[in-house]
Amino acid sequence: MPDISQRGLEMPSSPIRKLAPLANEAKERGIKVYHLNIGQPDLPTPQKALDALHDVGREVLEYSPSQGFLSLREKLVNYYERYQIKLTPDEIIITSGGSEAVLFAFLSCLNPGDEIIVPEPAYANYMSFAISAGAVIKTVTTTIDEGFCLPKVEKFEELITERTKAILICNPNNPTGYLYTQKEMNRIRDLVKKYNLYLFSDEVYREFIYTGSPYISAMHLKDIEQNVVLIDSVSKRYSECGIRIGALITKNKDVLKTVMKFCQARLSPPLIGQIVAEASIEGTEQYSRDVYEEYVERRKCLVDGLNKIHGVYSPIPMGAFYTVARLPVEDAEDFCAWCLTDFSYEGETVMMAPASGFYSTPGLGRNEVRIAYVLKKEDLRRALLILEKALEAYSNK
Amino acid sequence: MPDISQRGLEMPSSPIRKLAPLANEAKERGIKVYHLNIGQPDLPTPQKALDALHDVGREVLEYSPSQGFLSLREKLVNYYERYQIKLTPDEIIITSGGSEAVLFAFLSCLNPGDEIIVPEPAYANYMSFAISAGAVIKTVTTTIDEGFCLPKVEKFEELITERTKAILICNPNNPTGYLYTQKEMNRIRDLVKKYNLYLFSDEVYREFIYTGSPYISAMHLKDIEQNVVLIDSVSKRYSECGIRIGALITKNKDVLKTVMKFCQARLSPPLIGQIVAEASIEGTEQYSRDVYEEYVERRKCLVDGLNKIHGVYSPIPMGAFYTVARLPVEDAEDFCAWCLTDFSYEGETVMMAPASGFYSTPGLGRNEVRIAYVLKKEDLRRALLILEKALEAYSNK
Repeated sequence: MPDISQRGLEMPSSPIRKLAPLANEAKERGIKVYHLNIGQPDLPTPQKALDALHDVGREVLEYSPSQGFLSLREKLVNYYERYQIKLTPDEIIITSGGSEAVLFAFLSCLNPGDEIIVPEPAYANYMSFAISAGAVIKTVTTTIDEGFCLPKVEKFEELITERTKAILICNPNNPTGYLYTQKEMNRIRDLVKKYNLYLFSDEVYREFIYTGSPYISAMHLKDIEQNVVLIDSVSKRYSECGIRIGALITKNKDVLKTVMKFCQARLSPPLIGQIVAEASIEGTEQYSRDVYEEYVERRKCLVDGLNKIHGVYSPIPMGAFYTVARLPVEDAEDFCAWCLTDFSYEGETVMMAPASGFYSTPGLGRNEVRIAYVLKKEDLRRALLILEKALEAYSNK
Repeated sequence: MPDISQRGLEMPSSPIRKLAPLANEAKERGIKVYHLNIGQPDLPTPQKALDALHDVGREVLEYSPSQGFLSLREKLVNYYERYQIKLTPDEIIITSGGSEAVLFAFLSCLNPGDEIIVPEPAYANYMSFAISAGAVIKTVTTTIDEGFCLPKVEKFEELITERTKAILICNPNNPTGYLYTQKEMNRIRDLVKKYNLYLFSDEVYREFIYTGSPYISAMHLKDIEQNVVLIDSVSKRYSECGIRIGALITKNKDVLKTVMKFCQARLSPPLIGQIVAEASIEGTEQYSRDVYEEYVERRKCLVDGLNKIHGVYSPIPMGAFYTVARLPVEDAEDFCAWCLTDFSYEGETVMMAPASGFYSTPGLGRNEVRIAYVLKKEDLRRALLILEKALEAYSNK
């Protein structure tokens, strides 16, 4: 039989995917699993969006425009204005989730062999999209001891070669919850300008910033307007991950034109998802405030709780709804698997994402886990107790 | 500013895309345009599917499994059984339309530089997905004079090199409506076996076969079970192109495992689309029969009408809902554009797809157009009259 492609062999299977069958087995044994591992909020989708879904009322569920509905793009223009990002509808392309936006950005801007510099730990699927496009990810390491702040410019410059074509950031960050400061964003801007790079900026968590620090979008940076490609998604902010609606946004007309060719090839983004997304954007300010308040409390509950457990350390995440915590274990992958296979406390256990899957540099993050605070506070408190008990049992085994 | 990628520059802009703005301008001038150019059926989506959409009733529109819902894959197993294709749910992966299935098949099976042999004229977006994956399409030419039947084996063998990795067919065919015979399918099977190739078979039009000839799926072919990757979509058969639900189907476990890595990277196929698709599959036999009868009549109406116009020739398409017709013009691209810019008959005109966009070999199909019969019979009749008038006026200008 014919061979699989080389890139197919190279595509990563992240540690978290290895854990999924173990979680299923635990559930089959009757054990309740608290999912601290995923970025799927438990919060309801806005009622306005659910109403729009109920009332679609079309007789033919036909193709929508390859660029996405104009009405949705117009609503997004208004949305971004709230964040001092000035756009026209033509500068927005609707994609099948933020995922497709990343893939199309890479396919449009990068040649096979081109290099992207990404601060690690990083969202693991960037690597998958880079492999899909034949591009190479080079990482600058951020550390838990420095609270995952951006490394010095020299660390970036050490990695720059003639094949370096882009910097990719996620801000606020998944998995660390880090929020880049104005100073850090300026340093990125200077690098982008000096070396004529693309800046891919994934800002899907912009609604979730907790410290009063300002949100500095890549779109706010002066003099690199033609270099910035913004990746966005409605998934997280309206708890509608399943509708698969994201966006690729840029002021660079060549990039827009090229991305559109990839969009035309796949015909159109999801029709119904666009209708739901459009209804989510306006008139949901109260929803967004409620959701925000909820995450503020969950974050406090989780981070305080983690830091009270002996040997556990979590920096205070400034945004998103994750934190990367250090555990008093040697091998968090082994510990996370053990929690699912060999441990339970009063019939319950926890599932976490080993942080090694978010680092490209081998050996990093071995004693770290990513924990998402997308569960209700009482569930988070219970999960923290179970984690404490698990760590005790694991160290005594 | 940084460069666009080479593949971005190579991505085709098909002639039909160049016509779209001309059609919009015609409409702005108040001219009614009959769209013979697109594969978007005007028929309603099944009521059962629309009811399912109305009744989704979920509070959180969350991620679905990367492989797609098991319940949908189980329904598809039953569906394929009707066509003597025996599958298990694990052999089916739900994708964002047939488009994503083609892209993931290419990314998983082909290395950059690998070659795919495709009979031309062919669905133009195969080229876009090949470019996305760095693969190279080589075409064997089928001709209108031979009714677009499969060329002799020698024509394939002339193209086979050490980089040949796959054959891709669309059956029934878009754009020609051709249906491969048992004999032709056997010839393809022998080639696939002899040269150890993948056989990508796009069978999204299987419901639409009009001549009593049997439908031979690539999945029916013996001894190449591990080589076949079926591409499918619910778009055409249930008139729900907008929901973006397709499938990649294979018995090859290595391919399944690899495709799943690409699926996991993009997280999940559209949630709501899957719910609509699932409702479309069972209990819609009467709908399918009605739709089929409608297309039988439209096909007769269109093909008879075309062949009555002086100088026009259309073979009788055996399947799908397209035909490729020869027009008494030198340059169909120019004629199609002229119909939109310089012609109208009683305030109306027609839009057709120049067939040159479906051929890779330069110069082929210059006097051919693809015409879709996705309009009501009275509209088709009217469009045929307008086409006749346009051809007269064009030859007299």
